[in-house]
Amino acid sequence: MTLVFHERVGLGGRRISPFSWRIRYALAHKGLDPEVVPTRFADVDRIRRLSGQHFVPIIEHDGEVVHDSWSIACHLEDRFPDRPPLFGSAIGRGASRLVNNWADSVLAVSLRQQIYADFIWCVDPGDREYFRGSREMLLGMTLEACSADRDRHLPAFLAACAPLERTLSAQRFLAGEAPAYVDYAVFSVFQYARIGSPRDVLAGADRLEATRDWRARMVALHGGLGDRFPGYPTQQEIA
Amino acid sequence: MTLVFHERVGLGGRRISPFSWRIRYALAHKGLDPEVVPTRFADVDRIRRLSGQHFVPIIEHDGEVVHDSWSIACHLEDRFPDRPPLFGSAIGRGASRLVNNWADSVLAVSLRQQIYADFIWCVDPGDREYFRGSREMLLGMTLEACSADRDRHLPAFLAACAPLERTLSAQRFLAGEAPAYVDYAVFSVFQYARIGSPRDVLAGADRLEATRDWRARMVALHGGLGDRFPGYPTQQEIA
Repeated sequence: MTLVFHERVGLGGRRISPFSWRIRYALAHKGLDPEVVPTRFADVDRIRRLSGQHFVPIIEHDGEVVHDSWSIACHLEDRFPDRPPLFGSAIGRGASRLVNNWADSVLAVSLRQQIYADFIWCVDPGDREYFRGSREMLLGMTLEACSADRDRHLPAFLAACAPLERTLSAQRFLAGEAPAYVDYAVFSVFQYARIGSPRDVLAGADRLEATRDWRARMVALHGGLGDRFPGYPTQQEIA
Repeated sequence: MTLVFHERVGLGGRRISPFSWRIRYALAHKGLDPEVVPTRFADVDRIRRLSGQHFVPIIEHDGEVVHDSWSIACHLEDRFPDRPPLFGSAIGRGASRLVNNWADSVLAVSLRQQIYADFIWCVDPGDREYFRGSREMLLGMTLEACSADRDRHLPAFLAACAPLERTLSAQRFLAGEAPAYVDYAVFSVFQYARIGSPRDVLAGADRLEATRDWRARMVALHGGLGDRFPGYPTQQEIA
């Protein structure tokens, strides 16, 4: 069996993509140890040739190329059914997709606003012009303008976390007593914020203690996977 | 086997509680046909004597009394494992709890604002003083004040539905190709809005077509269960 994981990297090998993070956790959950191909934004031609599109993560499994993190998770679940389950059942898969979409269309959107002005310094210097240009075109404003009002928007993000807090006050993980793909999908956007900014978005939240504890448990999973790569760059690295 | 379902009712037997609706659907999903005890807010003494608390729905199953809709759903799943699954697996249950909490702490909160000034007319005339008093104390304002800005708040509700639309554009139900408890939990708050106001909160939403279609499929499930009881009262019934 050959398994290759094309994973987004930033400055000094930082893992900067929430989509790559959820697949990294999913691979660890399944006990799979793929060959990792660190992938910069500048590697877009290689990625296009490989997959016909430009997004990462991608896996190559015995020659089959799968892109899009949700499709990769489904592929891993279907092709490694005897290893620990990511979804557990058809209903678990359906509900996980909803949670995955909530993480992306609600939490990640709100978190980008919190971190974008900091995040650019986690991107490889050679990728910054592309990153800035593409994101600012989508946003219709500069990264700095996007984050300028972050203090005003933070309460809305924390309010959006209410379902997490309520759930994690009653069970250890979002998937129940043990973690599964819903945990990885939601954690991946917190991890993105954790790597992508020196400011902890949950620091001032009185009523998100269970969520903060869960985040720490998620960092510690799979041998401390959440801390295996560098965090936010120091002032020296930025300068 | 004896099974009794204490279900919230309003004006003319209307089913007005999202929590009772999700259990009504869960019971139908399991093919269970309980004795139904229609329960008004005025029946609070009976409910307290029965369960030690004042919320409905409640089920009595062979003498065991279970309250709280989530606990009831878990009870039905655990005690009727050979009937169609509500969660399907431990992961399915964990993820369903998160979706259930999202429906309550995000969607229902936003929908109350949309419907409260209309909803009071669905409540039994003898329960209106209690309903108004208790809700207005929690809100810190009148029901009418709560709904006064509903047009301004509607876009935020529609934006909160983005994960539904993305999911339902890819699969028929939130649980996958067939409905399960996540569908019932989320549908129950839409059904609450559907019964509780003459205005369709999804009517003007260009980008929620898949969600609107799913809502119609949910109404039609289990022999048209969503339309089995009266909808919003006519002007004549209100006057």
